[in-house]
Amino acid sequence: MNINLIEAAAGRLKRHARRTPLLSSPFLDEIAGRRVLVKTECLQQTGSFKFRGGYSAVSALDEATRKRGVIAYSSGNHAQGVALAAAMHGIPAVIVMPADAPAMKLDNTRRLGAEVVTYDRANFESREEIGAVLAGERGLTLIKPYDEPQVIAGQGTTGLEIAEQAARAGVETADVLIPCGGGGLTSGIALALEAHAPGLRPRPVEPQEFDDTARSLASGRIESNARASGSICDAIITPSPGEITFPIMARLCGPGMVVSEDDCLRAMAAAFARLKVVIEPGGAVALAAALYHPGTVAGDAVIAVASGGNVDAVMFAKALQKYRDGG
Amino acid sequence: MNINLIEAAAGRLKRHARRTPLLSSPFLDEIAGRRVLVKTECLQQTGSFKFRGGYSAVSALDEATRKRGVIAYSSGNHAQGVALAAAMHGIPAVIVMPADAPAMKLDNTRRLGAEVVTYDRANFESREEIGAVLAGERGLTLIKPYDEPQVIAGQGTTGLEIAEQAARAGVETADVLIPCGGGGLTSGIALALEAHAPGLRPRPVEPQEFDDTARSLASGRIESNARASGSICDAIITPSPGEITFPIMARLCGPGMVVSEDDCLRAMAAAFARLKVVIEPGGAVALAAALYHPGTVAGDAVIAVASGGNVDAVMFAKALQKYRDGG
Repeated sequence: MNINLIEAAAGRLKRHARRTPLLSSPFLDEIAGRRVLVKTECLQQTGSFKFRGGYSAVSALDEATRKRGVIAYSSGNHAQGVALAAAMHGIPAVIVMPADAPAMKLDNTRRLGAEVVTYDRANFESREEIGAVLAGERGLTLIKPYDEPQVIAGQGTTGLEIAEQAARAGVETADVLIPCGGGGLTSGIALALEAHAPGLRPRPVEPQEFDDTARSLASGRIESNARASGSICDAIITPSPGEITFPIMARLCGPGMVVSEDDCLRAMAAAFARLKVVIEPGGAVALAAALYHPGTVAGDAVIAVASGGNVDAVMFAKALQKYRDGG
Repeated sequence: MNINLIEAAAGRLKRHARRTPLLSSPFLDEIAGRRVLVKTECLQQTGSFKFRGGYSAVSALDEATRKRGVIAYSSGNHAQGVALAAAMHGIPAVIVMPADAPAMKLDNTRRLGAEVVTYDRANFESREEIGAVLAGERGLTLIKPYDEPQVIAGQGTTGLEIAEQAARAGVETADVLIPCGGGGLTSGIALALEAHAPGLRPRPVEPQEFDDTARSLASGRIESNARASGSICDAIITPSPGEITFPIMARLCGPGMVVSEDDCLRAMAAAFARLKVVIEPGGAVALAAALYHPGTVAGDAVIAVASGGNVDAVMFAKALQKYRDGG
């Protein structure tokens, strides 16, 4: 895994992925006590950075393999990213999702052109087994959500853009706060910044009780969460950092940060009021850390990645109701 | 008023105004039955296109005049645009606002560095008189909201960007739907498209009962609205099109379009779900026309300007609750 893979991915993604804006507001600067720059990946195709990794992985396959199609396990952003990437290549995509996933997510994935195969979580059906059978029968290639070099390379293109956009904004030294699940986005950005903006320090941010990466960075080995679900930040909940992503993060990242669910809702309300963008709870952890935990950040400026915006109307309205004054 | 003024304004706005993205979603294309491209001016500084006109006008003043400061009458987006433009030039700004304007708007304008002078609508105090006295005493220059060449020039820079971004997206022939109040944005974009993208046809969009521009275009002379307020689309309610803006619109625009308030709320929910951006009711009229009145639009693609995102949490939550399925 190295910077060349990321630069090659950027070439393949050109004109397909969006170059998302780096937004700011004097009101957010006031809250944080320093300049705050927000990389708005919620404005990416399919509403999250996951499209980058999906498109990178699909486009990296040799043509014969790609034509047979791809498969992914996901109930969320990775599913939509892979589905749209496959549709843009005109190839079949199978997404294995739990039967009890929100109807809207099942529907969205289908409408992006994917075949959705459901499994029954309650009856302990194994998505891996179902997927392996389908993949074998049809010759599909599995696109893993984070522990896969071409996926990390795609997510890393976010870091290439941050390096350029921060330089243009006059920011050369800053912490870059990144919502972290399995570490695909964090490790990809870390590699991009190492090569192109060494004064920018990547730091993973996680929700309380799901701080596997922060603890892994502290202990120096891969740690796990006690629970696998039960957070409003569902998009970034994974059991532990990946085997490829963790060593990269351990080498390049500053200490992890942890925020509460209320911090996330408040950051969502602030982004609504001050940036006019929609962020999902898991995508808001980094902005929450920048705004409400400024004492643990160094420097005159901070960059926060808003990694996704796929939040349902009820949850979003809850955030606005709780923090009417705009965070 | 001509294209040279707009191009000069673009030069002054460079690195100060944002080049806002032209976003799209396959889900919106499906609703409209054609490609839909959304120019997201809600992501502009201060949350609306008005910053462009404010900055253009302030930066066009000669230095001695500018140093004495500027004044504007507005309870909304123009106030914030002028306030930030003045702050960025390090000059004083006085904004005359009704005393009963929402506290958040008064507060936002002050926090952007402006001096807010309030007047009492109930006692028929005249904001013009108050403003004229202040302007005379302090040598302030009035920045009108739309019927002013340098303001139109600033708004017109939106059209320069649309011309470039549409060409890059492969769209050379399309209707460009524009939320229209006094016509500053519409006439500015119209002039820019005339010069740089003659296949793109500008069309003003207004809310029902406040369709002064549509009626004026139909009759060939300036018509007025029966009422001056009472719409959720308050940001784009004006008594009639301007004396400078109307002749430009009459020469260059296609027929006006009219949408209902419910169309606007629904378009806000669609933008939330599919683009992850926040649009205010008045800023949503053009997207509403593109999505829910496709029969009155011509061509394989349509461009809709989302002109602003300054909506309060209660109104936004109302839109999400009413159209939970995402418009």
